[in-house]
Amino acid sequence: MAQMISTVRNGVDTQQLFGTLDAIRENPALGAFTFRATNRWINGAHNRSRMQNFYGAGREDDSRREAFVIDAGEPTVLLGTDSGPTAAEYLLHALAACLTTTIVYSAAARKIRLTEIESTVEADMDVRGCFGLDRRFRNGFEAIRVTFRIAGDASDERLRKLVEHAQARSVIYDMLSHGVNISVDAVTG
Amino acid sequence: MAQMISTVRNGVDTQQLFGTLDAIRENPALGAFTFRATNRWINGAHNRSRMQNFYGAGREDDSRREAFVIDAGEPTVLLGTDSGPTAAEYLLHALAACLTTTIVYSAAARKIRLTEIESTVEADMDVRGCFGLDRRFRNGFEAIRVTFRIAGDASDERLRKLVEHAQARSVIYDMLSHGVNISVDAVTG
Repeated sequence: MAQMISTVRNGVDTQQLFGTLDAIRENPALGAFTFRATNRWINGAHNRSRMQNFYGAGREDDSRREAFVIDAGEPTVLLGTDSGPTAAEYLLHALAACLTTTIVYSAAARKIRLTEIESTVEADMDVRGCFGLDRRFRNGFEAIRVTFRIAGDASDERLRKLVEHAQARSVIYDMLSHGVNISVDAVTG
Repeated sequence: MAQMISTVRNGVDTQQLFGTLDAIRENPALGAFTFRATNRWINGAHNRSRMQNFYGAGREDDSRREAFVIDAGEPTVLLGTDSGPTAAEYLLHALAACLTTTIVYSAAARKIRLTEIESTVEADMDVRGCFGLDRRFRNGFEAIRVTFRIAGDASDERLRKLVEHAQARSVIYDMLSHGVNISVDAVTG
């Protein structure tokens, strides 16, 4: 009967999760990942990225049959044609998505069944910074505020601890909080 | 005949661009923007964000008739079902999109006609960090590498300067390089 017992919790196969952690412990090289995106300018504020292959778990991953294709843009008031969300909004999405998945995975590992996670993310900026009009303002957001609503089969305290743990382990939260080294090269012509 | 002369360069209406800058100089409050996203967990690594209204240019902007809806996910090897790009890939997209738009807008202001911009962005991480397996690794990327290919009606030097200027003015590059304050609240039940 053992095989009848589902190991899936919150949509995460916990047997696969713990197996993955064990595999990386045994062979640390499996932990190295390289993610990629290619972007092409279309017109004005409209540009488009494609993401498909990446390196991870010891090999070049080709499991995605097609590339994900996503468009960026700016609203009219920022001189675009609304061809897609702004880069700033994509950043907020990346943060919300990463924190949410971190919550879901760690809840699965801790045997907590979640029923709902919603978040709102908002951030202020003064475009006098990025437009070069006033040096007192930075280019980016002054601050980002995230509010989670989370429900599940655990005490309020354990649910809140999941959100705290996500801040301690989230890939995107780490980079946005502490910064990351970026190198930019240009090939002309 | 003056009205026959197009003020559009690289898909950017430069008359509108300079008009916007003038308007903000005259009334600095127009520079304040607040961007937002709401995210909802669906199952496992699958979650979905919506972005529609934002505050900017002195008012709540409701020019978007519909929300942008984007899905995040993880590939199989990271315990997902490939329901969308990973948060890490969305971050790379946000960086490429923001640098590209900054290049396009500043080229328009400098009277440079661009014919092509492509970029590849890649970044390494060791998931032993975010999986909590080894404290020597951070949760996020170790580094991000961006390579631009840019062509247009200007010298190689001026084209390279556009890419340098984008690093000095990009909203996303600033935040990823220097970090930003993030507050996270949780409401349970």
